[in-house]
Amino acid sequence: MSNKDKIRVAVIGAGRIGKIHIENLVNKISEAEVTCVADIQVDKTKEWAKKFGIERVIPDPIKAIQEPDIDAVIICSPTDTHADLIIESARAGKDIFCEKPIDRDLDRIEAALKEVKNAGVKFQVGFNRRFDHNFRKIRSLVKNGEIGDVHIVNITSRDPTPPSIEYVKSSGGIFVDMTIHDFDMARYLTGSEVTEVYAVGNVLVDPEIGKIGDYDTAITTLKFENGAICTIDNSRKAVYGYDQRVEVFGSKGSAIAYNDRPTNVIISTQNAVCMDKPLYFFLERYKESFVQEMQDFIDCLKDDEEPMVTGKDGFQAMAIAVAATKSAKEKKPVKVEEIL
Amino acid sequence: MSNKDKIRVAVIGAGRIGKIHIENLVNKISEAEVTCVADIQVDKTKEWAKKFGIERVIPDPIKAIQEPDIDAVIICSPTDTHADLIIESARAGKDIFCEKPIDRDLDRIEAALKEVKNAGVKFQVGFNRRFDHNFRKIRSLVKNGEIGDVHIVNITSRDPTPPSIEYVKSSGGIFVDMTIHDFDMARYLTGSEVTEVYAVGNVLVDPEIGKIGDYDTAITTLKFENGAICTIDNSRKAVYGYDQRVEVFGSKGSAIAYNDRPTNVIISTQNAVCMDKPLYFFLERYKESFVQEMQDFIDCLKDDEEPMVTGKDGFQAMAIAVAATKSAKEKKPVKVEEIL
Amino acid sequence: MSNKDKIRVAVIGAGRIGKIHIENLVNKISEAEVTCVADIQVDKTKEWAKKFGIERVIPDPIKAIQEPDIDAVIICSPTDTHADLIIESARAGKDIFCEKPIDRDLDRIEAALKEVKNAGVKFQVGFNRRFDHNFRKIRSLVKNGEIGDVHIVNITSRDPTPPSIEYVKSSGGIFVDMTIHDFDMARYLTGSEVTEVYAVGNVLVDPEIGKIGDYDTAITTLKFENGAICTIDNSRKAVYGYDQRVEVFGSKGSAIAYNDRPTNVIISTQNAVCMDKPLYFFLERYKESFVQEMQDFIDCLKDDEEPMVTGKDGFQAMAIAVAATKSAKEKKPVKVEEIL
Amino acid sequence: MSNKDKIRVAVIGAGRIGKIHIENLVNKISEAEVTCVADIQVDKTKEWAKKFGIERVIPDPIKAIQEPDIDAVIICSPTDTHADLIIESARAGKDIFCEKPIDRDLDRIEAALKEVKNAGVKFQVGFNRRFDHNFRKIRSLVKNGEIGDVHIVNITSRDPTPPSIEYVKSSGGIFVDMTIHDFDMARYLTGSEVTEVYAVGNVLVDPEIGKIGDYDTAITTLKFENGAICTIDNSRKAVYGYDQRVEVFGSKGSAIAYNDRPTNVIISTQNAVCMDKPLYFFLERYKESFVQEMQDFIDCLKDDEEPMVTGKDGFQAMAIAVAATKSAKEKKPVKVEEIL
Repeated sequence: MSNKDKIRVAVIGAGRIGKIHIENLVNKISEAEVTCVADIQVDKTKEWAKKFGIERVIPDPIKAIQEPDIDAVIICSPTDTHADLIIESARAGKDIFCEKPIDRDLDRIEAALKEVKNAGVKFQVGFNRRFDHNFRKIRSLVKNGEIGDVHIVNITSRDPTPPSIEYVKSSGGIFVDMTIHDFDMARYLTGSEVTEVYAVGNVLVDPEIGKIGDYDTAITTLKFENGAICTIDNSRKAVYGYDQRVEVFGSKGSAIAYNDRPTNVIISTQNAVCMDKPLYFFLERYKESFVQEMQDFIDCLKDDEEPMVTGKDGFQAMAIAVAATKSAKEKKPVKVEEIL
Repeated sequence: MSNKDKIRVAVIGAGRIGKIHIENLVNKISEAEVTCVADIQVDKTKEWAKKFGIERVIPDPIKAIQEPDIDAVIICSPTDTHADLIIESARAGKDIFCEKPIDRDLDRIEAALKEVKNAGVKFQVGFNRRFDHNFRKIRSLVKNGEIGDVHIVNITSRDPTPPSIEYVKSSGGIFVDMTIHDFDMARYLTGSEVTEVYAVGNVLVDPEIGKIGDYDTAITTLKFENGAICTIDNSRKAVYGYDQRVEVFGSKGSAIAYNDRPTNVIISTQNAVCMDKPLYFFLERYKESFVQEMQDFIDCLKDDEEPMVTGKDGFQAMAIAVAATKSAKEKKPVKVEEIL
Repeated sequence: MSNKDKIRVAVIGAGRIGKIHIENLVNKISEAEVTCVADIQVDKTKEWAKKFGIERVIPDPIKAIQEPDIDAVIICSPTDTHADLIIESARAGKDIFCEKPIDRDLDRIEAALKEVKNAGVKFQVGFNRRFDHNFRKIRSLVKNGEIGDVHIVNITSRDPTPPSIEYVKSSGGIFVDMTIHDFDMARYLTGSEVTEVYAVGNVLVDPEIGKIGDYDTAITTLKFENGAICTIDNSRKAVYGYDQRVEVFGSKGSAIAYNDRPTNVIISTQNAVCMDKPLYFFLERYKESFVQEMQDFIDCLKDDEEPMVTGKDGFQAMAIAVAATKSAKEKKPVKVEEIL
Repeated sequence: MSNKDKIRVAVIGAGRIGKIHIENLVNKISEAEVTCVADIQVDKTKEWAKKFGIERVIPDPIKAIQEPDIDAVIICSPTDTHADLIIESARAGKDIFCEKPIDRDLDRIEAALKEVKNAGVKFQVGFNRRFDHNFRKIRSLVKNGEIGDVHIVNITSRDPTPPSIEYVKSSGGIFVDMTIHDFDMARYLTGSEVTEVYAVGNVLVDPEIGKIGDYDTAITTLKFENGAICTIDNSRKAVYGYDQRVEVFGSKGSAIAYNDRPTNVIISTQNAVCMDKPLYFFLERYKESFVQEMQDFIDCLKDDEEPMVTGKDGFQAMAIAVAATKSAKEKKPVKVEEIL
């Protein structure tokens, strides 16, 4: 592919997730070219970006967005900057990929999405798990009717270790920073909208988390428009590693996605018969899904198609997260429409 | 063992479950002797009982209970007769095994258990799943601290096919006739008491079930005194068979009981790689647990020990079932103490 | 069933395997009645037999065989007595179940089977593994053509711990006392006759076994009339327990029987993800197959049908074992017809 | 990494495997640079190579080898050219990666390796399976003594579909073109040399294969210097896909590598409980191992270390293949030293 056919992207924010996207774009997605990276830490980022042949690293995101040779913007900066950068990009006529969540405030999300709509640019939210091989297979089984009508969804989603207290303080809490992925997964798998949420949170892992008003262990029950019911169980700490499983049960059967493991080796000794622990955390488990999500985004731009994860998906997941947070605090079921 | 050392039991009610207990007692529990069976269908029962060398079949349960050569009474008659027969047996000084539920009315259960206490006789409720090899192993892992403090419990409990509408009409509903087993399992696995219940029911399998005010699909969330949270998902119809799984997740790890299958054969063909479906229904899956529960009961009588499933266990499980039913109807969480 | 309709059996030899058969006959096979047990250790056996309601224990097997009220004889005495007892039983017109091997000498087997044939009595050999749920399923898949033409068979058969040196000294060696079960399994699964054997033996577990000229580790390759090829791997010592697996690979696919385990629980901790070890040894793993084999034998007698494991099966398995022993000693392939 | 620090390689032969190596070198191995590709089909290859930014495509391999700016040569041309190209590369002082087999003639292999030794260049053979995550884990378990002394190795290696008859005609036969991977795997896993081979071949898949004197189904037994015994079962056609499994059984336990599958989803329906078939063929299953093998080769060049798969490994595997071919033809065990 000649360079001038490539989608030229600017990446805003070269933190952990920004770096993943840059690496994937450079090494694995031949249809894209990272033309510019915007990050406050210019020198450090420049040093790092050199390895990937990226020479343009600037501190100002707005300037990066407005560059005339940029086709698309990948927003990986802190959450509270997302809405503004979306609006800026939309007004500049650039296609947008934005990390989740779009924002923690539903009104601000709406405002940003309105600009996207007005500008007619493409927009994708970073719910990378939709691109995981296991979950994508389950979605396709549901979509093809092989499970029949969906009756029950069970999602298990546990981290190997809690984030720092600083992170939790500013993240919006467990339902907003962690379960939001599962809320999106539930919508994705069922293809239906959530009408009501009941969330139970508890502090069983780290009392510090409780002190700042958050939970480290939670169970959420979702009701769907199509009648399905869903449970999500979350923990900030599964000592055996990242536990990411999903079951969809329907009128024709059940599909379960088990964890991926580093190898398929089983060892039998005098003491026990053991297999590998699950892949350690999201960087390992969802490594390939990050590539696929970016590939899908670039493909949509090239083929002029609607991305698989839309602005509405970003809005709805956050609406459910807000409802769940309210439900856990007020200890009662909350209708999603209540908080809209 | 000479016959006079054996525990002599009378079985009240020779329906499906009564027959299972009789067969197990005769063929597999050498320390017991079925001396008498009471069933209204005397002739049919007599014919059947002959195969097991049982000659005494009478219509009147009270008479059976009062026979002087009877040590213990196994109550397998319809639920609404349980409380009276318990009281009768206790007053006659006989040890008692009673099928679940003890009664659907909490006051009647209390009254019956009071008589048991006054009489000082042994009492065991028929929560046979506690004796299942898989679940017993999980309980022992929890008890030995190998999972650490319990944070989350997930129970999946689905029947292969709904019962008749007649049965559902009189059973008390899905939480009382089906989930009650899971409520007991949750208490058994955690070793803690349930404080609050939130239940969501839906009619997705058979509209007839909805017409009589019951549900065929349900998710229940339980909160425990020790802080643990539990989800139970139920369906009256899993087309692939009886689905009975349990996970306990705690501070030191997780233990999951998968389904038992008829064989461990895996077949790989051009079309698919397949294994056996789960064992069909409770008669197959819990076959061995029925033997173990009866063995345990007889052992307790011989060794003068407290049975593993007590009257309190029968009471608590029903209290949770009543709370769940209320929660589903009123669409809000219900504290167990509210309904006591 | 009234006692006079029952098949009345005499059991010769109340050692470990004899006791298993007696317990199963008494507790689980209602169509049979153990009328008499013959064992040199009369007192000890009498004491034990009392628990099962068996009163007649005598020292003389011939007398037991000749009792007029005996329908069938179950031969569980030492191997070198089998042939004579078979001949005795056949001449007395009694149906016969004989533990494996029939004899270590092929001529003596032939002589005994000739008498059986002349007498027209039923005869079954104790290859109990044919009645195992897993292997029986694989056989039925092969028989129904679901695997297509059989191309490759892989049998893994490893004991948890070697037998005593005394046992090995008199057993005829690993191929005769251990692999013989696998030779029968290979014939059973393929439904074809073995034409050539190549066996490699080694002493890797216990040098004492080598000193008496036997092996503790062995691999045998079998060629079949129908073109299939089979490997059998044996070890006297698998530290993780009894390892009994089988694969049949054919033109339409593959069927693999994995080990049975005490529970289906999987435990995930910081250190590992582990499941149960296989069931410990043959008493645990083949518990149910011993019941089924005896049930099948009794059913054949009642229904006047040919038993599933015939005298020819006993002869052929021993012929292969003799060929394997020769092959391992002479370090070259041996045709089965060579040793006939 | 600046370009002048990169290992500059010439790839000889841009057929299927050559293309895989080129893609991996370009996209995934940043320490290497494909400077030149030699292939007779210059135009077609040029067209293809453009996508990877490779501009230099020439027809003459010798010229490519002798280019002064080339550090290493990757030989992916037809087998009968390997030895000459190795000699040419060694004399030019270039490090060498050569696809398997080095040659079909042991003398020619020796001659080529002698030149490699004299030149003091690095040499690696393309036994990519050593770099597979599953097998590498088993090797590390063996090496660390976690399985104890190795007693038995079982290798299952079956292709989803036979190669063309033309390929089989010139490949040297099943043991030389297919089992050779398994021979190398057996040596790799045990860390010991094979002393004797017994191979049984049969024609059960395609009679055409038999007409040209080859087999499509085979079982090979290997004896090792350290006493271990190994079985390898091969089929040219497993209808369910590529079947690549390995077990190492030793004094302290067993390690089994099961197949990789596209997803970890299990689907339960009325008909069956099914999982994915294994990954289709070697391109899918060993995708990552091809990357790792090339990474390892480049790392060895950069760090001046001996490659993991040496010339000796290439020689020994072919020696075993020759012995196996002889054994199958002559129907007797063959010592490896016989054919040296």
